[in-house]
Amino acid sequence: MALIQRHPLLTSACLSIGVLASSSLMAWDGVVDKQSFTLDNFTTQGGEAIPDITVGWEAYGELNDARDNVILITHFFSGTSHAAGRYEADGEPTGYWDAIIGPGKPLDTDEYYIISSDTLVNLNAHDPNVTTTGPASINPDTGEPWGMDFPVVTIRDFVEVQRELLESQGIESLHAVMGASMGALQAIEWASAYPERVERLISVIGGGVADPWLLATLSAWAAPIRLDSNWNEGDYYDGEPPTKGLKEALKLVTLNANHWQWANDTFNRDWADEGRDPAKDINAHYAIEQTLDDIAAARAQTSDANHFLYLVRANQTFMAGHGDSLEAGLSAIDAPALMLYSENDLVFAPEGVRHTAELIKADGTDVTLETLEGNRGHLDGVVSIDQASDTLREFLK
Amino acid sequence: MALIQRHPLLTSACLSIGVLASSSLMAWDGVVDKQSFTLDNFTTQGGEAIPDITVGWEAYGELNDARDNVILITHFFSGTSHAAGRYEADGEPTGYWDAIIGPGKPLDTDEYYIISSDTLVNLNAHDPNVTTTGPASINPDTGEPWGMDFPVVTIRDFVEVQRELLESQGIESLHAVMGASMGALQAIEWASAYPERVERLISVIGGGVADPWLLATLSAWAAPIRLDSNWNEGDYYDGEPPTKGLKEALKLVTLNANHWQWANDTFNRDWADEGRDPAKDINAHYAIEQTLDDIAAARAQTSDANHFLYLVRANQTFMAGHGDSLEAGLSAIDAPALMLYSENDLVFAPEGVRHTAELIKADGTDVTLETLEGNRGHLDGVVSIDQASDTLREFLK
Repeated sequence: MALIQRHPLLTSACLSIGVLASSSLMAWDGVVDKQSFTLDNFTTQGGEAIPDITVGWEAYGELNDARDNVILITHFFSGTSHAAGRYEADGEPTGYWDAIIGPGKPLDTDEYYIISSDTLVNLNAHDPNVTTTGPASINPDTGEPWGMDFPVVTIRDFVEVQRELLESQGIESLHAVMGASMGALQAIEWASAYPERVERLISVIGGGVADPWLLATLSAWAAPIRLDSNWNEGDYYDGEPPTKGLKEALKLVTLNANHWQWANDTFNRDWADEGRDPAKDINAHYAIEQTLDDIAAARAQTSDANHFLYLVRANQTFMAGHGDSLEAGLSAIDAPALMLYSENDLVFAPEGVRHTAELIKADGTDVTLETLEGNRGHLDGVVSIDQASDTLREFLK
Repeated sequence: MALIQRHPLLTSACLSIGVLASSSLMAWDGVVDKQSFTLDNFTTQGGEAIPDITVGWEAYGELNDARDNVILITHFFSGTSHAAGRYEADGEPTGYWDAIIGPGKPLDTDEYYIISSDTLVNLNAHDPNVTTTGPASINPDTGEPWGMDFPVVTIRDFVEVQRELLESQGIESLHAVMGASMGALQAIEWASAYPERVERLISVIGGGVADPWLLATLSAWAAPIRLDSNWNEGDYYDGEPPTKGLKEALKLVTLNANHWQWANDTFNRDWADEGRDPAKDINAHYAIEQTLDDIAAARAQTSDANHFLYLVRANQTFMAGHGDSLEAGLSAIDAPALMLYSENDLVFAPEGVRHTAELIKADGTDVTLETLEGNRGHLDGVVSIDQASDTLREFLK
């Protein structure tokens, strides 16, 4: 209301938006319309040309006339643009951050235009709700899938595609950019590369650089895919895909992204099959093994193995600003930052998150560092985000 | 000296032992004589017969006439009986616990007879200094390697072979049993199964049961071997072994047994090959990846993939006492227990170690719980054991 009082010219417009936003007609109904954005002649940061790129995106809430109520959500490694809402009018919400995005929620769709896009080389390339460009896409120059000829892409490339998507909607500045894990890397890169466009940075369970531990962890995730003989150096699109290797890779992701507290709270020592005692049958399993296998097998159905390898590499190459020093990359950030993290994170070491906060703060930028509690370790940044609701609401004001 | 004064009859014997032990002739010179022990007609706890078993063993110090100065050392997953000393007179000591075993050290070879044996299905089956029986051994009934027809063996089976080895030397009781990780499981099982024979239990970085987190972690370790097409359901002894899968399995062990502090203290973001930028070449690597690959590749040369799978299973099946309840298995322990562990252990959850201590203590058994510091996580139980020297010396008195 302060804005309306100071600028009489805007009164009627703001008022009408205000009235509409508070009516049930205008409030976001939670149904998501998946859309796609195409870009011709994209050049990667590494200097490689990709003739065309298409990524999916979705948005919640309404873009205001000033186009300054935008919150960009950037997704995690195994995630998609589906941060909130439902695809079917009569379905349940399936967005990963439904807890905090919606009418009256901390990321309030009555107030903000919240937009999220699938990254390049999105893992879920074969999910009908995902649109992405990567090794599984057709290279227009050959008419065949790119496979391992697809250029290496980086977090900065993801940011550049998002920038183009936003500009196509006339959006030049972000009220906030927020992401978890790999999404945090994108959010940090946004704030570092475009400090004049980012008003608030919200980094969840991520840091300013892929540290050696993360380099090695990601390397271990990739290994099962390369071990699967069906992988065939990435050339499998006209044959059997390396589903077994991909499944084991996804199992490692699930395990590393969780914490021993979760495993021990959730499971017991039951056998997978009541009639097959693991102490008597070397090929028998425990229930926890079978559950993790089943989860991974289901996810492998809509995932692509080469995309997994390219995502591993995109994360490995990350250092904010991609310059000579992490200090320079992080000191470029001017936006006040909210950093949420878990002390039990086994993927992004809490020490690294705190170090990132210190480097952003070094030149006087405001940083709020807050821990997330729970038994999921890294994943508490996704599944337990509601505990940060008040902090988020306050930070976004 | 108090003993000599109280028992005049023992004066001369004690004195002569004392004199000899302090002379350079009698003190253990650190050179290890690897020996082997064969047992016919072994029956596993699961009821399966193994016609013959041979395991390697070594000892440091002298067995006294009363045969009551024995400390049994039980080894970890990737370990061997080589806890201390050197195989060549002019070589350097290469035992994993040289820091605490030797003349005048906490496990004092001037005082104790310290013995250690290779387990069944020892990982390092192709190491010339290791003798073990497992899938890579010849099944005398077929004249072929056992492969996956080898029966599942358990921690209790390891203990039973050790018991037979000790009895073959006339040893009926242990001054102490001590082991790290899988060695701790054996030590705990000894104290639970044979409370009348174990005077002191020293459990390092291990607990009373393989909890769900450990079940899943071990499962993830095994996966790369089964993915390698050379594995061939375990039938590879007349062809190419699954070295790539075994290497990736060993890499996961190295990573999980360490901690992010170690990775980030030890490595940086250097590329493996100065001329190959990982941001431009999807098949290029970082230095930490290459180092872990190289370590794993070297270890794979002397390891056996099927043995790895059988060790995974031996660890997975572990619950002290192997009865209906962990409470019963641990309450059977009468020996005072020293439990050393790391709060940063990513293999044996510290919560599980503390729970084990509580259950042993429940009926009044004395338990000392002490943390190990360092940046190696689980591995601090092996590489940083010297910090517990005073505690060990006191506990062994």
